[in-house]
Parts: sequence; structure tokens; C-alpha cells
Amino acid sequence: MKSNIVFIATSLDGYIADSKGGLDWLNIIPNPDQVDMGYESLMARIDGLIMGRNTFETVCSFDVEWPYTKPVFVLSNTLKKIPKEYEGKVELVQGALKDVLAHLNNKGYTQLYIDGGATIQSFLKEDLIDELIITTIPILLGGGVPLFGDLGQAKELELVESKTYLNQIVQSHYKRKR
Amino acid sequence: MKSNIVFIATSLDGYIADSKGGLDWLNIIPNPDQVDMGYESLMARIDGLIMGRNTFETVCSFDVEWPYTKPVFVLSNTLKKIPKEYEGKVELVQGALKDVLAHLNNKGYTQLYIDGGATIQSFLKEDLIDELIITTIPILLGGGVPLFGDLGQAKELELVESKTYLNQIVQSHYKRKR
Repeated sequence: MKSNIVFIATSLDGYIADSKGGLDWLNIIPNPDQVDMGYESLMARIDGLIMGRNTFETVCSFDVEWPYTKPVFVLSNTLKKIPKEYEGKVELVQGALKDVLAHLNNKGYTQLYIDGGATIQSFLKEDLIDELIITTIPILLGGGVPLFGDLGQAKELELVESKTYLNQIVQSHYKRKR
Repeated sequence: MKSNIVFIATSLDGYIADSKGGLDWLNIIPNPDQVDMGYESLMARIDGLIMGRNTFETVCSFDVEWPYTKPVFVLSNTLKKIPKEYEGKVELVQGALKDVLAHLNNKGYTQLYIDGGATIQSFLKEDLIDELIITTIPILLGGGVPLFGDLGQAKELELVESKTYLNQIVQSHYKRKR
């Protein structure tokens, strides 16, 4: 069973970054014991990640070690080459999303984490997302980068489960109803 | 303790009506036993409702009996008079929101249900909402009338509780953190 999975945190008003692109608000709820909110089990479950160029470049800009243990596929029609230091970890993919997916699925990548605002919106528009795990931070940002965008038509979902972390953060897991 | 309370259903992508203003999607989850999702206890708790003219006119257009048992205050700077059939049930209020609230609070209306998209956005912008009870229907509408709008600045909330109705509908209750 192939799955394209979104796992992302948003403000209650649906933003994934504030109006300056900032992410500090993701940490407004103290998490002294570093409770994992499903990220590790998701990472264990997936075969690879698909992200857009913007998200890739943002991750590269973080002053930390490369955070992914699974192959990362970067969607880009402008990037020509992956910087040398990411070779073996990151692969460029391009073309229509359906073709990209068919190619990756054929190579055995069937459980894919789809990341990055623009990429998620493109996948949703083509109805290529199978699961959405949305973690809601208790804040209204009042502006910023929205998670969701226009879709051609409504898409029904099925709630798999909803839980609360740290008494403050609601995480709801949906599957696309097909 | 005065409270201005929002109690509203949205799609997962944050719309309160679809792109044609339609509300049919509110009923996509079968509710044969007519499980009440907190509406009755909210109605019992409040002293009155504040809504905008649009919402008032929408409610009037429904082919049902007047649905409210508490006084309804309609915010409008254009309406001059409440239609005769609503006299005694509905009162026009106008002016700055803070003044409207001060006036109603003075008259003893302290637990107010704030309804209607534009009205909710105006109250949020002036940081006049104390509680938000958001009921999320498992659907992406992909467009329509958004619940939230731009705010001058971020507003932190506190999760009071989150529960699931009919196994599919997540309802989260937030308080403004002051």
C-alpha cells in the first residue's frame, strides 16, 4: 500500500511559518523532556522524503548535522546539481508529480514523507496525499505562510486518531477517503 | 468573569462555508442519533449572542423557527430597524466593538457567543475573544469563506480540552492566554 504522508505543525489559523518565515512559535509550549510527537515513528516508517527546493535550502541553512536518515528527493526544475556534501543523501527529481512518484515507487520507495508548503499544496491539488498528520500549536499567528491553498474541489478525509501532547498540542491524523 | 466565545465548525483547511457559501459539508459525518457537540451546553451558558448583519440575514432565511432562546445583538451600521417579527428577540447594536461590549456588559450580558465570519475576525483583530471552540470537520474544502483573517500580531492560546465526536470530528476548546 503506497502512502504519501504529510506530517507538519501549524498554528490554529493554519500557518506553517510566520510572516517573516519564522518558526520560533513552534516552541512556545515548553517540552523539557523532549517528548517526541510522532516524528521518530514516522521517520522509522517512511522510505524517503520528497521536498521542494525551498525547504531543502532551508534545511541546509540550519547549523546542524544533516537531520535525515532516509533518502531525500528534492523537487526542482531549476537546481541542476546537488551540492557535493549532500551527495548520497539527496537526489534531484523533476517533472510532473505523478511521473516523479511512479519513478520512485518503481524503485521501491512507497512510503513517502511529503514536506514543504508549496510541495504539499501541489500534491494536494493533484490529490496525491494519502495521509495528513497535523499538529496544531495553540497560537494564532495572524499571517504568514499558509499550509493549505486552493484545490480544484473538496476532498473528504477520515480521522484515524487525534491525541494531545503536553496537554496543549492537538495532533490529528487523517487519511484521504477514496 | 466576562467571556466572548466563538463556537464554530470549520473544514480542516479552515473554511466556514464553501466557495458558494454552502454548508452541506457540515453534515458529511452521519449523526443518526443527533449527538449534540456542545451546542446545547454553550447555549445554556451564554447570556446573549452577537452576530453580524450577514449572519443574521442568513439565519432569517432558514425555513425554520427562530433558533435562539437568548437575546441576539446584531452588529450593523447599515440596518436601521429590526423587522417586526424579530422584535423582542433581536436588538440592533452599532459603533466600536469595545463600546458595544461595554454597553452590553453593563446591562448584565457578560457571557456572549460571537458568531459570523466577519464578526469573529473583527473581534479577534481587537483581541476581544476569550474562548474559541473549534469543531473540525474532516474535509478539505479547498476554498470558501475563511474563519481566520489577518491579525496585527500573534496571540497565544491555551488548550482547555480536545475531544472527538462520532469518531471523526475533533473539537478543541482554547482560551486566550492573557
